[in-house]
Amino acid sequence: MRKIVITGGAGFLGQLARGLLRSNLNLKVDEFGERQIVLVDVMRPQMEIDDPRVHFVMGDAADQQFIREILSDDTQGIFHLAAVVSGAAEKDFDLGMRVNLDGTRALLEACRRLPQAPRFVFTSSLAVFGPPLPEVVTDATTPVPQSSYGSQKLIGELLVAELTRKRFVDGLVVRLPTVSIRPGRPNAAASSFASSILREPLNGQEAVCPVEPSTALWLISPRLAIDCLLHAFNLPSQKLGSGAINLPGITVTVREMVAALEKAGGRDAVKRIRWEPDPEVRAIVETWPTRFDTARAASLGFSRDHESFDRIIADYLHEESELGSKRHA
Amino acid sequence: MRKIVITGGAGFLGQLARGLLRSNLNLKVDEFGERQIVLVDVMRPQMEIDDPRVHFVMGDAADQQFIREILSDDTQGIFHLAAVVSGAAEKDFDLGMRVNLDGTRALLEACRRLPQAPRFVFTSSLAVFGPPLPEVVTDATTPVPQSSYGSQKLIGELLVAELTRKRFVDGLVVRLPTVSIRPGRPNAAASSFASSILREPLNGQEAVCPVEPSTALWLISPRLAIDCLLHAFNLPSQKLGSGAINLPGITVTVREMVAALEKAGGRDAVKRIRWEPDPEVRAIVETWPTRFDTARAASLGFSRDHESFDRIIADYLHEESELGSKRHA
Repeated sequence: MRKIVITGGAGFLGQLARGLLRSNLNLKVDEFGERQIVLVDVMRPQMEIDDPRVHFVMGDAADQQFIREILSDDTQGIFHLAAVVSGAAEKDFDLGMRVNLDGTRALLEACRRLPQAPRFVFTSSLAVFGPPLPEVVTDATTPVPQSSYGSQKLIGELLVAELTRKRFVDGLVVRLPTVSIRPGRPNAAASSFASSILREPLNGQEAVCPVEPSTALWLISPRLAIDCLLHAFNLPSQKLGSGAINLPGITVTVREMVAALEKAGGRDAVKRIRWEPDPEVRAIVETWPTRFDTARAASLGFSRDHESFDRIIADYLHEESELGSKRHA
Repeated sequence: MRKIVITGGAGFLGQLARGLLRSNLNLKVDEFGERQIVLVDVMRPQMEIDDPRVHFVMGDAADQQFIREILSDDTQGIFHLAAVVSGAAEKDFDLGMRVNLDGTRALLEACRRLPQAPRFVFTSSLAVFGPPLPEVVTDATTPVPQSSYGSQKLIGELLVAELTRKRFVDGLVVRLPTVSIRPGRPNAAASSFASSILREPLNGQEAVCPVEPSTALWLISPRLAIDCLLHAFNLPSQKLGSGAINLPGITVTVREMVAALEKAGGRDAVKRIRWEPDPEVRAIVETWPTRFDTARAASLGFSRDHESFDRIIADYLHEESELGSKRHA
């Protein structure tokens, strides 16, 4: 059992494959040439991982037949990242239900047929929470989703928990804060602006900010998000207890993000933001909690982010320049 | 729009049809002979309701094609009571998923196709709760199901909430305590004993008690359960707020139930209970909460039960004797 499957692996979180290769999983290239990390996605990866142990397969993780072919008996673990994101799931209810609910269920059912229950890491989201909210969300706060995406993720959480209780999988759910600064391009997430109002201006391009400067967000950096997924993968089941794990994050207002942008990119960068309030985006984003006490994550050994958004921008620029030099090499 | 559909209507809660007839819904016999209350179930009702406005249709509420035929455009409301009960859902995971999850979803999807969003009353259960539990469950307690039935009911709750948010239905979820004393026969619910250790001995028959005398239960009488369903049906949407409603109940230990049985049926009745602890039943029942603070239900005007189990037995005997005299008439 050595194969690890990452659904939605073409996105930036698919880069956790690099982390898996670095970690002590002792993945060796099979003598028959079979790869041990399989990225699955409906589109090609933004960034190829050039390693013989990593294999990309194009296909729909919500397609039962396809996913059964991917999950061979030697599958040791799954990261289930594939999802129709918040804005898209709100616009197309049926698509969200098919991918986020049916897809998660089909994947769990396929896992159930494996000879050994695989570790199943499911990425849920802060979007499972909505009003009425306490000032600080804790591990005891009841999720009350106010979006299709949040509802579907919460149902996914319950499916993972139930199939874990039945020992069909060895599951674990982490709830991600909004990830910023995501590399790559804008997407249909309601929170897409939380990356694009920084990424695009730093890159000399315009970006639209659909919310007020006073809007607060609960953020995690891509690097920490990947570290948390790797940490989750290796957590022993008996330490876990029940319920989803709210991952650590930092609370940042859009105003603070823009101030950090100015420090890193100057006044010109800030001028590249067009302020165009979008009621549909606001209706989703403003139901999300902005402050958490993530005591359980801390007790399970999850790392924390930099407290300063300046450092997150600096990390982003550093990684981009490294990738840039690789791209040009 | 005058048709009301009751899934699982052959069970004792289907008797709420009588309550609907009595209430001020002004149901008239259609001149073309169409009935206005439709009971749907996979088995025939335990007790027929002899009224031209009540119609029974045998069929599987989880069958998409069948349910679309039942839900004509004049459907005003649905009581969705049909379910694979706790013990059966635990034994047969796939059956529980098909009926409790897929069935609820198919019914909601069928409602979505109606010209007007119907009132959709969904009966969830205290089984959505499990350890770790506070001493008293409140409206703020996060459900953590520890059974397939509880998981499936909680997912059903989320589906009803989400389709209500999208205005596809006008939904409302009530969480029932264990109903006792249920008329009729034992069923595959893990809590079936909570009725049978009273009903069978009072009727001169043996019954098995699979739990310890010290086991506490959160109970509701059949009469109050039906009253609560009728009250829920008529609650204005704007008063509701979000989230499932924990219905009122009383906390009774098995020992107290047996003491009440002795008062009503004498020592001989008590001797008809065989004490045979069943680990499978205990594993489900003992994860359920036994004390609630049902403030929200009270604020929404739901009635409370008798505080004394003696009164619940007396009501049961009274209703049985009334039915008995009708049966013999």
